[in-house]
Amino acid sequence: MATIRVPHPVPTPEEDAKTLRKAFEGLGTDEKAIIEVLGHRTAAQRAEIAATYVMLYKETLVERLDSELSGDFRKAVILWAMDPAERDAKLANQALKNKGDQHIWVIIEVACASDPDHLMLVRKAYCSLFSSSLEEDVASRFAHEQPLGQLLARLVSSYRYTGERVDEGLTQSEAAELYEAIRKKQPHHEGVIRMLSTRNKSQLKATFNHYKQDYGKAIDEDIESSGSSQFTSMLKVAVCCIGSPEKHFAEVVRTSVLGFGTDEDSLTRAIVSRAEIDMKKIKEEYKIRYKTTLDADVIDDTSGDYKNFLLTLLGSADP
Amino acid sequence: MATIRVPHPVPTPEEDAKTLRKAFEGLGTDEKAIIEVLGHRTAAQRAEIAATYVMLYKETLVERLDSELSGDFRKAVILWAMDPAERDAKLANQALKNKGDQHIWVIIEVACASDPDHLMLVRKAYCSLFSSSLEEDVASRFAHEQPLGQLLARLVSSYRYTGERVDEGLTQSEAAELYEAIRKKQPHHEGVIRMLSTRNKSQLKATFNHYKQDYGKAIDEDIESSGSSQFTSMLKVAVCCIGSPEKHFAEVVRTSVLGFGTDEDSLTRAIVSRAEIDMKKIKEEYKIRYKTTLDADVIDDTSGDYKNFLLTLLGSADP
Repeated sequence: MATIRVPHPVPTPEEDAKTLRKAFEGLGTDEKAIIEVLGHRTAAQRAEIAATYVMLYKETLVERLDSELSGDFRKAVILWAMDPAERDAKLANQALKNKGDQHIWVIIEVACASDPDHLMLVRKAYCSLFSSSLEEDVASRFAHEQPLGQLLARLVSSYRYTGERVDEGLTQSEAAELYEAIRKKQPHHEGVIRMLSTRNKSQLKATFNHYKQDYGKAIDEDIESSGSSQFTSMLKVAVCCIGSPEKHFAEVVRTSVLGFGTDEDSLTRAIVSRAEIDMKKIKEEYKIRYKTTLDADVIDDTSGDYKNFLLTLLGSADP
Repeated sequence: MATIRVPHPVPTPEEDAKTLRKAFEGLGTDEKAIIEVLGHRTAAQRAEIAATYVMLYKETLVERLDSELSGDFRKAVILWAMDPAERDAKLANQALKNKGDQHIWVIIEVACASDPDHLMLVRKAYCSLFSSSLEEDVASRFAHEQPLGQLLARLVSSYRYTGERVDEGLTQSEAAELYEAIRKKQPHHEGVIRMLSTRNKSQLKATFNHYKQDYGKAIDEDIESSGSSQFTSMLKVAVCCIGSPEKHFAEVVRTSVLGFGTDEDSLTRAIVSRAEIDMKKIKEEYKIRYKTTLDADVIDDTSGDYKNFLLTLLGSADP
């Protein structure tokens, strides 16, 4: 479900490092060559290129990209060139310094739309980079915004079982428990937070399906009707990131391009973090929901190297 | 601070595997040889021996030990021969199936007296072994025992920063926050749980010191005076496992030998899990607190191969 396209055969890391070095040298930077190399390599390949680059030229690839590029293009390429766990740790840390729902989205994405092993690596990277733990900073930042702080701290601390095991009896009883909490306008009930922060994703998806079947409405719509607090809207985002992350990221992209101006940081984050995961599904969802294509919206709202880079990650750049 | 003694030079894993194989074969098992090898090797060395053993003899070392040995000696040797993360995952899983404070201790020990990276490995092993996550099983098991369930789920989900960083301003304000919660008989306050489950251990130890300085009493004594619920006594255990695990494990050993009969499972757990970590400190603490030695209590309450094995791990067996 990834959208990036890797050439066959792929050049060796040495060849790629040399191509990049050449693109940096001389007057002016060859942005096209940088996109051509990095935009068509997987995370593992980019890591090898970065390791080879620092060995050959005694400077890190990210630092060189930082000095050669500028603007949104620079931000996007650097996020793409970084180790994914480190990238998410930095995005989360940055998000914690800001106010507003969109920044909380970042925390929830890292916690709920990531593979559990990736989340563990993010937590490790976070400790190394910031000398505190991710859950510590999340819990402190939202210490006086309960129950939101509790929800977020528990989501980022999760290490879910990744198998497909579903306990059918449990889906029914927990769907009922969710329904009761929502009906009583208690979406912050301990049972709800416990379930969302500990159950494996297959189990939760089955519970959400059961909910719709038994109670006639999707759980995320019902959560919305149970109150209009920041907590309920973030709970909805968590449910969405667990159950159907493609819906959430389609919304992130759409929100970033709607209205005057563009929220480039959000647009970049969505594309960079999902290009190798589920961008194909996000594009399909986008088309159904917004009656336009994600590519078309990106083309409308961006320009130059930044546009070319995003379209490359979307698998939609001219060959 | 470990008590096990590794010979210099140490035999190769092949030599050790062969010695063990020889101890298993023929009429009767040579328990002494098993103790001699396994009781004098570090976790890394035991892992190498187990890997070599299965390669040479097409049977796992643990399975063979299981069929050769019996009783408390068997249990102890098997726990010692297992991968430590797997061992703790199994101990936690077993503890969750039982009722009573002593079983909850096991959960708290794994969560609070372990190195954060070890706890992560335990959580991984738990998922592989039991097809559910540790925090999921903890949260479900204690779903109707709040706030205890919340405390335990958050402690087992922690991944604390391991550096020595201490924020002095924070120690003061958080010591005050703890004091307020205890004074108002609200030890289950979100701030208390947040602090204990997210702050790094150096920070927490500094906060506990500050508490004693400012309020004249050790925090664990104060917690006890704030109520006599199961929650307060488990909170005290958590504080102890974070601040001075040697005190907690001295108590585990002492409780296991006191009165009629011996709680061999607890005695084994304490010695096996701490022999390579802080058993020297536990012995010192034991002497100060109980006016007798840990070795003497073990000698009084155990016998045969079991006794010899424990004394070997305690570094106190005859050479």
